[in-house]
Amino acid sequence: MRPKPLSGFPEFLPAGRIVEQRVLDVVRATFELHGFAPVETRALEPLEQLARKGEIDKEIYVVKRLHAAEDDVAELGLHFDLTVPFARYVMEHAGHLQFPFRRYQMQKVWRGERPQEGRYREFLQADIDIVGQGTLAAHHDVEIPLVALDVFARLHEELGLPTATIHVNNRKLSEGFYRGLGIEEPSAVLQRVDKYDKIGPDAVRELLTGELGLTDGQAGACVALAGISASDESFVDEVRALGVAHPLLDEGLAELAQLVRVARSERLVADLKIARGLDYYTGTVYETFLDGSEHLGSVASGGRYDSLASDGKVTFPGVGYSFGITRILAPLIAKGRLAADRSVPSVVLVAVDNEDSREASIGVANVLRARGIACEVAPKADKFGKQIRYAERRGIPFVWFGSSSVKDIRTGEQVDADPQLWEPPTADLRPGIVFG
Amino acid sequence: MRPKPLSGFPEFLPAGRIVEQRVLDVVRATFELHGFAPVETRALEPLEQLARKGEIDKEIYVVKRLHAAEDDVAELGLHFDLTVPFARYVMEHAGHLQFPFRRYQMQKVWRGERPQEGRYREFLQADIDIVGQGTLAAHHDVEIPLVALDVFARLHEELGLPTATIHVNNRKLSEGFYRGLGIEEPSAVLQRVDKYDKIGPDAVRELLTGELGLTDGQAGACVALAGISASDESFVDEVRALGVAHPLLDEGLAELAQLVRVARSERLVADLKIARGLDYYTGTVYETFLDGSEHLGSVASGGRYDSLASDGKVTFPGVGYSFGITRILAPLIAKGRLAADRSVPSVVLVAVDNEDSREASIGVANVLRARGIACEVAPKADKFGKQIRYAERRGIPFVWFGSSSVKDIRTGEQVDADPQLWEPPTADLRPGIVFG
Repeated sequence: MRPKPLSGFPEFLPAGRIVEQRVLDVVRATFELHGFAPVETRALEPLEQLARKGEIDKEIYVVKRLHAAEDDVAELGLHFDLTVPFARYVMEHAGHLQFPFRRYQMQKVWRGERPQEGRYREFLQADIDIVGQGTLAAHHDVEIPLVALDVFARLHEELGLPTATIHVNNRKLSEGFYRGLGIEEPSAVLQRVDKYDKIGPDAVRELLTGELGLTDGQAGACVALAGISASDESFVDEVRALGVAHPLLDEGLAELAQLVRVARSERLVADLKIARGLDYYTGTVYETFLDGSEHLGSVASGGRYDSLASDGKVTFPGVGYSFGITRILAPLIAKGRLAADRSVPSVVLVAVDNEDSREASIGVANVLRARGIACEVAPKADKFGKQIRYAERRGIPFVWFGSSSVKDIRTGEQVDADPQLWEPPTADLRPGIVFG
Repeated sequence: MRPKPLSGFPEFLPAGRIVEQRVLDVVRATFELHGFAPVETRALEPLEQLARKGEIDKEIYVVKRLHAAEDDVAELGLHFDLTVPFARYVMEHAGHLQFPFRRYQMQKVWRGERPQEGRYREFLQADIDIVGQGTLAAHHDVEIPLVALDVFARLHEELGLPTATIHVNNRKLSEGFYRGLGIEEPSAVLQRVDKYDKIGPDAVRELLTGELGLTDGQAGACVALAGISASDESFVDEVRALGVAHPLLDEGLAELAQLVRVARSERLVADLKIARGLDYYTGTVYETFLDGSEHLGSVASGGRYDSLASDGKVTFPGVGYSFGITRILAPLIAKGRLAADRSVPSVVLVAVDNEDSREASIGVANVLRARGIACEVAPKADKFGKQIRYAERRGIPFVWFGSSSVKDIRTGEQVDADPQLWEPPTADLRPGIVFG
């Protein structure tokens, strides 16, 4: 009886996991090039910690020992993101950390949501955050999306993944604009504007007048603001042309203009309809779309929060970005658009002539391994044709015969070779990643 | 209010996590050099799957959605090892895997045990297994500990971790010996012999006569067998000298002798008291002790099982090894014996002269990053002395000033340099790992 997969818990075959690992390697290497230090937190947090934000409590997985003892009072749950555990980590270890603290964290998270396309119950996130003690300079809001651009550029250049475009807005800009229009509840407006891409500008306008009682002029201005986007500072003039004034608007415009100016990239767009729903951001907000796969929705997002954590005395402001690794990869791998060209790390299969000479084959393999060439020894002293098929089925490019001969089974070319000296082509050292 | 740590859930500061990551990098690279393919399974398994082995059900963490729907019948638990989920994975995906299938898997596991020194509720394991469909050749029992020896050798050479010694036995050898003595219940003897290291030979002998009713002669022979160990084939003659004969004993002796002969290493010892308690091994069994830290107990273990999984028609025999990464690292890191020489990946802090020149500093940083040199830009245009202290507190070895000058803050030496050309010493490219 074959076990059935659990809906919402994606699992890859080895070739898919090879792709995921390579992606994680590139992401991690980029984070480290930008000076982010690694942190890993436990998967379980006290339930009260997880439920504090209210709205998402129905998605939490509660964890209990099967035979919990009576004195086992701690109620625990699986973390549903990496921000809540990181905030707890910062509070717990603040005395041992250097601020501003730059960390990355790549872990699975769990949400008990009803599974649907692009939504998972277990998925992998890769987060970066910069956290200050008391204060955190605004230039970090500029820095974070530059790291994200670098991540996506390297994933594109090194592994051929699709390019991505980052859309940026600033809560101060939107809120200042709404307040300048005389609107009292900017967050209610933001929630409606958040639906702009799904329902279109006219429907948003109707919600703003119908549900919130905005005047036609107010609603029109809000929708006009949401329609502005540019990858240079020209958006500032467009906003000014709407004739609204407020100090918070000025602050937001200045921050966003600075970001666009420093980034100087067509892949980073000021997009004034970006709202990030109910999340607790207080300044810059980011969303990211894969070029050509915009239908997947935002695959990486983040923003600035004035208070990541607070112990009553000290507040820890932060700015961060979360990459939805599973969200990016699972659909591409499942559809076969993203694949590894072999299912094992081995570059070489060392053939075995007969079982008595297996030790000699192990010797050849160990010489190759000592030189960084991954290999395996044939499991059975079959006819060579069968051993070659063993390699073929796994995509292993080379088969080694005896002590001094190696065959590229893709071309059939066989050459004399010394295991102490032979080098495979660099491109063959690791499985290749193919995107199509 | 500072959050309190959860007992049994170890967490590292960034410098500790840097150590753990480097260890995982070495372990993974070694597994791949030996041709093992990566697999990652979901953290949750159906409870019935986890509870099948009976004895450990009290340690399982059960997982439920906070507001589980009525139709949500699936009872799930967190996996407590990587073998049970891997067996399920093999059954589920058998049609898409190539056998013999060689996989590695590095993930957290959870056990609701009462925490104590060296025992955790959440910990990291790194497993390798070779699994056959129907059959699996005996030479893989030799191969697996050779991979383990290679892992520990590289951890020692590349990161300075303590060396390790692998102790090997064979269930067939013990069982054949006991049966040759006329003992009907070899597993009951094995359970008592498992206590040899804790209680000593005399107490084991008493258990065998007192609890199992063995004769003095039988008990004496069992204890004598348990006392035999050697890193070469001499143990075979010592066993033969005990004058016991049985076909299963011959088989076990031959397999173990083959292993010791091929390994040819002082770090691999045939040790006939190794029993591996109640685990379901059917042939070779392995345990591993860190040299000088034997009190931590076995930190890596495994063995051969005739049936890793079975679907009623096909049986999947396997042989595997599990490295207790947390078990090895957590005590060494907590006691400060194993540490990284800096708490961030950055090789260079690019100083900022004044906030107007921040963009120029970012430019220098990006040139260095493009050349693989990790760096960060100073968060504030403080006096240079303060910026140098920022680097010092994190262990960053170099500070870059302006566009063309870099200072090694350990020696105070400052040189003119071009960010397009300057190379730090290779040893500084990554944080160093220090064992003492």
